[in-house]
Amino acid sequence: MCQTDNSASAPNDLVAVDSRPVTRPSNPYQPVGDYLSNVGRFKIIESTLREGEQFANAYFDTETKIKIAKALDDFGVDYIELTSPAASEQSRLDCEAICKLGLKAKILTHVRCDMRDAKLAVETGVDGLDIVIGTSSFLREHSHGKDMAYITKTALEVIEFVKSKGLEVRFSSEDSFRSDLVDLLSLYSAVDKAGVNRVGIADTVGCASPRQVYDLVRTLRGVVSCDIETHFHNDTGCAIANAFCALEAGATHVDTSVLGIGERNGITPLGGLLARMLVTSPDYVKSKYKLHLIKEIEDLVAEAVEVNTPFNNPITGFCAFTHKAGIHAKAILNNPSTYEILNPEDFGLTRYVHFASRLTGWNAVKTRVGQLGLVMTDDQVKEVTAKIKALADVRPIAIDDADSIIRSFHLTLQNGHDGQTNGAAPAVAA
Amino acid sequence: MCQTDNSASAPNDLVAVDSRPVTRPSNPYQPVGDYLSNVGRFKIIESTLREGEQFANAYFDTETKIKIAKALDDFGVDYIELTSPAASEQSRLDCEAICKLGLKAKILTHVRCDMRDAKLAVETGVDGLDIVIGTSSFLREHSHGKDMAYITKTALEVIEFVKSKGLEVRFSSEDSFRSDLVDLLSLYSAVDKAGVNRVGIADTVGCASPRQVYDLVRTLRGVVSCDIETHFHNDTGCAIANAFCALEAGATHVDTSVLGIGERNGITPLGGLLARMLVTSPDYVKSKYKLHLIKEIEDLVAEAVEVNTPFNNPITGFCAFTHKAGIHAKAILNNPSTYEILNPEDFGLTRYVHFASRLTGWNAVKTRVGQLGLVMTDDQVKEVTAKIKALADVRPIAIDDADSIIRSFHLTLQNGHDGQTNGAAPAVAA
Repeated sequence: MCQTDNSASAPNDLVAVDSRPVTRPSNPYQPVGDYLSNVGRFKIIESTLREGEQFANAYFDTETKIKIAKALDDFGVDYIELTSPAASEQSRLDCEAICKLGLKAKILTHVRCDMRDAKLAVETGVDGLDIVIGTSSFLREHSHGKDMAYITKTALEVIEFVKSKGLEVRFSSEDSFRSDLVDLLSLYSAVDKAGVNRVGIADTVGCASPRQVYDLVRTLRGVVSCDIETHFHNDTGCAIANAFCALEAGATHVDTSVLGIGERNGITPLGGLLARMLVTSPDYVKSKYKLHLIKEIEDLVAEAVEVNTPFNNPITGFCAFTHKAGIHAKAILNNPSTYEILNPEDFGLTRYVHFASRLTGWNAVKTRVGQLGLVMTDDQVKEVTAKIKALADVRPIAIDDADSIIRSFHLTLQNGHDGQTNGAAPAVAA
Repeated sequence: MCQTDNSASAPNDLVAVDSRPVTRPSNPYQPVGDYLSNVGRFKIIESTLREGEQFANAYFDTETKIKIAKALDDFGVDYIELTSPAASEQSRLDCEAICKLGLKAKILTHVRCDMRDAKLAVETGVDGLDIVIGTSSFLREHSHGKDMAYITKTALEVIEFVKSKGLEVRFSSEDSFRSDLVDLLSLYSAVDKAGVNRVGIADTVGCASPRQVYDLVRTLRGVVSCDIETHFHNDTGCAIANAFCALEAGATHVDTSVLGIGERNGITPLGGLLARMLVTSPDYVKSKYKLHLIKEIEDLVAEAVEVNTPFNNPITGFCAFTHKAGIHAKAILNNPSTYEILNPEDFGLTRYVHFASRLTGWNAVKTRVGQLGLVMTDDQVKEVTAKIKALADVRPIAIDDADSIIRSFHLTLQNGHDGQTNGAAPAVAA
């Protein structure tokens, strides 16, 4: 695996990436401009310190919470959501402590639709309350046991109370995609008229699919005039796509957590969502978020909850910018846009081209020969490529093996031999 | 964290899950029946041994390839796709070896649209060839340098040759979502008339979004009469959702790999796709695939390529069926359908309810008390819950800590004390 020669290719890469948006209007599959769509003006409600605290491994002490809150604020998220102060006394104290940090991001706390919880929350100094109650028949029967009339009445009382304190208020159902549509729209219409800042749609169990999300949000967009927040669990692997389709349909806010941590296998991940949005709205995303901090923030949270960043994580997975097949490597070396929709430099990361395998093409080897400061004809590069592939057929080989074969072959050429060096037992040129 | 009492709840769980499909027709967000949709009759082309071999860490020796092929066959995939025999001599030999295994799955190999590669491939004993060529301007300029006329001419020659050998043939573009739509449709129309079994749409760079995919596949469905195969990279986290939307639009086949391994951060993962499809088409998925083998297959491949299963992997991530927040735990203990769209038992896995944290609710503790064989009143459970939460506010606590507090409290009750035992230094009842 070799790092591409940034000194040579970086300026060109940069040009190629910056010019990508310019090429997009000619793409016939790009949806045409749509007044509903907010893909170029969405806001992030970062919930690592709420949903993320519900992750199996999460235990955040006060110091860690403050570190994470500061990092997210620096990164540029619009809101930071905290665990309800009703969860425990320390949760309440931490909520107060984070409110006193004076961050640019607005601080929210996530509370049940219950006057006692709301009263506790407004005293902490938060900028707003995210109020939630289950509306599906599953949750009404097996969780809180309340009917829709009770839910509506309580919601209006709590909303009025929070507004009377001058705070932002969001009202969300839980399990929205298994709730009765008429119930849901009636409830949202009522809370919209009562003056909530946002209504929330939550795929609490991770069952929603992208076109369902689009349809529900588009319908809701016609019913309420307030903002629409969305929250997607990832049980069926659609949390990023669902958030994207919600924005296309007119949602304004997306809930995220770092690495997606949350209940079960979590929610829309901050980094993955930004990978998606960067491709669609590069100017907006680059102007608003400090993308080069994403790895640092993920490392901070991964360490705090004792997990490894998944090998296949968008952007920061160890192989996210590694190219291996010969045909890919060749094209990438000509122009990274061929097989990359994201530019690693946008995240302060580096591209790798893998050439030590049986799938290696001679173009990748040619680049490596240049990086080693050696000179060969194309025919000679093809010859040494065959040697590398022959060894890679027998056993996994590392970059050092490939380099040794290249150097040995080059030495043989200089000595006037015919290139018949045994690649499996190379003598390394100094 | 505690395992739920399966002896008590398993029969009910099973009933709840089996009855889920019956409840779906009342869900207003479920798309109505659509003659285009193949979500209930899709086929899987499993490409761990082709796309997966392009993963940075992948080196499969012959024995490993055979083990993986057999496991996938047993699992029930329709096709197994192998690396081109033109990649290396060992690749060719492995291709032959796998063809001789007599698997139920059809064996395909993935070759460039080139007569030399096709000739080599048809001699290996495969059931079919997946032919591919880049059609985007990016790839035409920076990869193979061919124009559309040349691509069409070559494609027709190679297709005719493969058909003359009596084998299946698929023709796919690379980077379909950045290709000119008219070029693409003209080419697919021509190869369809020439009698290909499938045309393929590939999001080679991972730039596509779900509604784009739906639109392109739906358009293509009106142009060709053959099957439609789809291939989605995961750079922007939409690979599962895109595959799902392709099936909704009339695609017939989806490419997968185990854990999604492939170039960069990979493609649609087999397990994640099945999580998605199981929610939508439970009868079809359960009748066709041995879901309880998914963890074993993922472990096999993870070991072979030396990665860990991501903590947040659908189905098999360590926390995929772990519930933590008090409100979730309570409802899950009443009825798992409240916060689970997948039933862990379908995969031979187990549900966990987390109760040793500051987010713990007394309902979860009540269950744990029962599991420990102890008897307490609800008020007593609430009292011991407060003790657990108080300790969890100070430091992370393990199941043993919580159990110790519960047992100590119970012992105090039996001894006629008032429950003032210090939870932090419990005496454990035998």
